[in-house]
Amino acid sequence: MKGSLLIISAPSGTGKTTILKKLMSDIEGTVFSVSHTTRSPRSGEQNGIDYHFVERDIFQKMCADDEFLEWAEVHGNFYGTSKTEITRQLNDGLDVFLDIDVQGARQVRSSEDLQSTSVFIIPPSWQEQENRLLKRGTDSKEIIELRLANARKEMSDAPSYDYLVVNDSLDKAVEALKSIIIAERSRQRRGPEGKPLSMPPMS
Amino acid sequence: MKGSLLIISAPSGTGKTTILKKLMSDIEGTVFSVSHTTRSPRSGEQNGIDYHFVERDIFQKMCADDEFLEWAEVHGNFYGTSKTEITRQLNDGLDVFLDIDVQGARQVRSSEDLQSTSVFIIPPSWQEQENRLLKRGTDSKEIIELRLANARKEMSDAPSYDYLVVNDSLDKAVEALKSIIIAERSRQRRGPEGKPLSMPPMS
Repeated sequence: MKGSLLIISAPSGTGKTTILKKLMSDIEGTVFSVSHTTRSPRSGEQNGIDYHFVERDIFQKMCADDEFLEWAEVHGNFYGTSKTEITRQLNDGLDVFLDIDVQGARQVRSSEDLQSTSVFIIPPSWQEQENRLLKRGTDSKEIIELRLANARKEMSDAPSYDYLVVNDSLDKAVEALKSIIIAERSRQRRGPEGKPLSMPPMS
Repeated sequence: MKGSLLIISAPSGTGKTTILKKLMSDIEGTVFSVSHTTRSPRSGEQNGIDYHFVERDIFQKMCADDEFLEWAEVHGNFYGTSKTEITRQLNDGLDVFLDIDVQGARQVRSSEDLQSTSVFIIPPSWQEQENRLLKRGTDSKEIIELRLANARKEMSDAPSYDYLVVNDSLDKAVEALKSIIIAERSRQRRGPEGKPLSMPPMS
């Protein structure tokens, strides 16, 4: 059986990374998609595992060939998700996570090539989210203010997602996400007119 | 938060009763709807727990008043699911199971009063299902043939359901159903035009 493509987005400071890390160790048959990027590898990053590191002209050719499910430019570097790569993983029966922001999610949802299910993780409150960003201790007050403003803006995309998971406790959020993944394996996929795409064979 | 209304249907011999029994002991916040019926209580059956036992004229008045989400006549007795009762349970935040057949499921899905999610449980194969019916030892060969013929007819409704759960192992089937229930608690409910009905409040 083909796997599911799962978009996971969350405003920064929501605890997404912690949730996904715990989730991946709890459930089998799931993988992250490996993005293509034009930026240089950082120390310890491996080609094909952390990213597919490609030259700018290759990336631009892939873009022109409509090879990306979604792509974006961030600080002068390009990042993209290859359709071929994801299709191969889905055909292997793997559930593929796309850890992308609301703009990327919009591109993926509008794709006619691949069906996806989307999950938006939200913090229990703005106060809690500010506390989490402060606790990280990595950002200045100004950066935190900027992140919070961005988070509020991203929240306005939440209604477009299939599922909303509130991260009020790590265990509950992981259980909700795990349940969504398992439930999606039993969900009947439908074509454009609402007709089921396939039925499991009965012998 | 309001609970979900979950339709569970399965051809006879699929193992639905065993699955639901295990499921109910595994997960909190779920209840079965209690149907109204005009048949007499059997030994040990309690009014308000197994059924709401009502006189025929009361049932007919409820029918005329559009009080039932679905109803049916079986062997001269009437059975129905009261909208008021289910709405009260859903408003209490409970997830309500409707253990009904494909005809009942069609009525519930077409209701404009209540949104529902539907699950169809299927046996791993026809052979396995015949084995299960034979193993029960309660029915004659003719009755089993009739049940199997009915099961095949009911299977043709499977594509109308939101989820298909294959009962190839009890534990897996229970896990799938449990995941569907938990996932539905995070699913965004949408109105007729696909607009989300509500967002959780953020303070």
